[in-house]
Amino acid sequence: MKGKAVVGQSGGPTAVINSSLVGVVQEALRHSEIEAVYGAINGIKGVLEEEFVDLGQEPAEVLEGLRRTPGAALGSIRYKVKEGDYERILQVFKAHNIRYFFYIGGNDSMDTAMKLDSLAKETGYELRVIGIPKTIDNDLAYTDHCPGYGSAARFVAMAVRDSGWDTRAMRVNSPVKIVEIMGRNAGWLAGAAALAKEQEDDPPHLIYVPERPLSKDKLLGDVEEAYRRYGYVVIALSEGVVNERGEPFGGEFAPKEVDAFGHVLKGGASDAAASIIKAELGLSTRIDKPNYLYRSFSLAVSEVDREEAYEVGKAAVIAALAGETGKMVTLIREPGSVYRSTTGLVELEKVANVERYLPDDFINEEGNFVTEAFIEYARPLIGGALPPYARLRGIRVPKKLL
Amino acid sequence: MKGKAVVGQSGGPTAVINSSLVGVVQEALRHSEIEAVYGAINGIKGVLEEEFVDLGQEPAEVLEGLRRTPGAALGSIRYKVKEGDYERILQVFKAHNIRYFFYIGGNDSMDTAMKLDSLAKETGYELRVIGIPKTIDNDLAYTDHCPGYGSAARFVAMAVRDSGWDTRAMRVNSPVKIVEIMGRNAGWLAGAAALAKEQEDDPPHLIYVPERPLSKDKLLGDVEEAYRRYGYVVIALSEGVVNERGEPFGGEFAPKEVDAFGHVLKGGASDAAASIIKAELGLSTRIDKPNYLYRSFSLAVSEVDREEAYEVGKAAVIAALAGETGKMVTLIREPGSVYRSTTGLVELEKVANVERYLPDDFINEEGNFVTEAFIEYARPLIGGALPPYARLRGIRVPKKLL
Repeated sequence: MKGKAVVGQSGGPTAVINSSLVGVVQEALRHSEIEAVYGAINGIKGVLEEEFVDLGQEPAEVLEGLRRTPGAALGSIRYKVKEGDYERILQVFKAHNIRYFFYIGGNDSMDTAMKLDSLAKETGYELRVIGIPKTIDNDLAYTDHCPGYGSAARFVAMAVRDSGWDTRAMRVNSPVKIVEIMGRNAGWLAGAAALAKEQEDDPPHLIYVPERPLSKDKLLGDVEEAYRRYGYVVIALSEGVVNERGEPFGGEFAPKEVDAFGHVLKGGASDAAASIIKAELGLSTRIDKPNYLYRSFSLAVSEVDREEAYEVGKAAVIAALAGETGKMVTLIREPGSVYRSTTGLVELEKVANVERYLPDDFINEEGNFVTEAFIEYARPLIGGALPPYARLRGIRVPKKLL
Repeated sequence: MKGKAVVGQSGGPTAVINSSLVGVVQEALRHSEIEAVYGAINGIKGVLEEEFVDLGQEPAEVLEGLRRTPGAALGSIRYKVKEGDYERILQVFKAHNIRYFFYIGGNDSMDTAMKLDSLAKETGYELRVIGIPKTIDNDLAYTDHCPGYGSAARFVAMAVRDSGWDTRAMRVNSPVKIVEIMGRNAGWLAGAAALAKEQEDDPPHLIYVPERPLSKDKLLGDVEEAYRRYGYVVIALSEGVVNERGEPFGGEFAPKEVDAFGHVLKGGASDAAASIIKAELGLSTRIDKPNYLYRSFSLAVSEVDREEAYEVGKAAVIAALAGETGKMVTLIREPGSVYRSTTGLVELEKVANVERYLPDDFINEEGNFVTEAFIEYARPLIGGALPPYARLRGIRVPKKLL
């Protein structure tokens, strides 16, 4: 079908979301059926306001460079599309003869894409809508994992290792470190903290995920035991951890905010945990909140992730040209001992608004760490081994004084 | 003078403090006058408790690997040495025939080294004491800069750029980002945020340092103007920023803690600033607090910094063998257009307990950014250009609807 294509970026950026954008653009430019590739400024807002840039006019070196540039080059947005908006979108698409819509985003964005696809079908406007997965949270269903996750996971692994080695060195003064990890409702990212651990006493010692409630007593018991064993304690704490009543852990101390989708923006779990540990165990506790670096720090990008982000963009265009619509591209892990992935498709209605949590066998029985099964799942996604660190053998000198 | 050497690491680790350690060890092992090189476990505490490891027994590959390993491999400490402690230290040194003491640390540690040197002289114990500078704060006097600073500065530049580009992409939802930067009393590290800025509208737009008081009105005026100009605002905010009365900015909201040296551990400046911006300007504001990653994140190490850290360690040994004592190694910037440094020496009494602040000509008149002179000073220290990012040209498509 001859017509123009629009691509948009939605929700929180990732370090590789531009790689998906480039995958779409470079593939689309290869096919004469796609007469132009427009980029929507700030996601669906740009579509509603008819704010487009012509990506076909970008120099080849800009597109290549974008594959290594974090942030969302088109601008992104969190915006809950209202019912009337869909008519407006189709009106804009008709005005420009836009027949292909590629939306790079998470489960909210897949909902937007699905509804647009439905309205186009209902009203008889020929449109191909393909969703392209993107989220550091890794919480989209029907895909082995989401582009953006591997790079964020690599940053988590490195950050917890480096900050953890710092804590090991300073344990006399401040033996406890909490690294607060992004992840609204799922612990995929917090779990990645385990990927840099080589020896039992290496950081992190505790990983708390939103899938398992955390009580004050549980936290104190775990920290006390780890401190007794290792002399210092490094905790990877998901920002979304909840207490036994399902409320944000320590939420009584923290202000609550609500985003455009009605999600509670959680915060304060690590501050609350640190206060409790200091007050009850008397252990000085430090906190890191790298926050937006999880999704943007370009130095820690996983090459596997960057490449897969590109491939899902390409696959979206190929699927649309083959007549597919109302689908999201998925990543499928190929069987075999060497990690490889291919792409597939799933109906948007199956992934829209669905969140995928860590399965039970990825969390240990005590609910304070991930399992070997999780590590096997996540390790290939972070793209190659972490730089090796040296450890002193530390041959003790016999004392001469008492 | 024949005898053993002890090397210790003190204060907060840096990403390259182990490189200085290796510089000491490898150089010391080359000289037969130094009969053994001991490492003190946890700095001066290890000396007091006679806890030493024999670094001469470490395999060569461990030492080489340590040059790329963050954290303090010997363990470090913040400990205010008490008067009686110095006698004990000399007693331990005598028992082991330790004649060389190398202490890697900041200005508190130089005070410890200075007092030990004085007591040795007073009591006629032949001892050579050389301080090795280390601090991400870059606040030691009589040295062009401090090992550890360049790597932390590189991380700051990259973190503010990446998180800033993320904010640019998400400006419709959250147009303000505050990155809280370590630095107790000096703005050297916060200033480094400017190093990744290429274009006027690039992040960061505002840099606040402890050397200039910040009022609520000043902050609000600056943010409002930057928002009007650029549509989003990225702020590098030193944790040590003070208000007009010299108190921690926003300190009325933040709990105060005091470390072993009586320094107030400041916190809460960014939380306070974010609350004010949200309340008064209605702009959604996000915060990053990478905290301990500034001093540990190995991926962002500056190769210049790593090499200089090694050289100051080496230079300390060479100076001690030449008969020097009571001195700290310094870095001297050589004149010329290509950056090069050599090492020098300064009396410990000149640097002990002295803090060096940003000079006036490194801060702009408005007190909300650094000057070109600062950028020229700091740029070579971060070791090579940052990876380039691509920018869309963004050729607009004419609208067809109203």
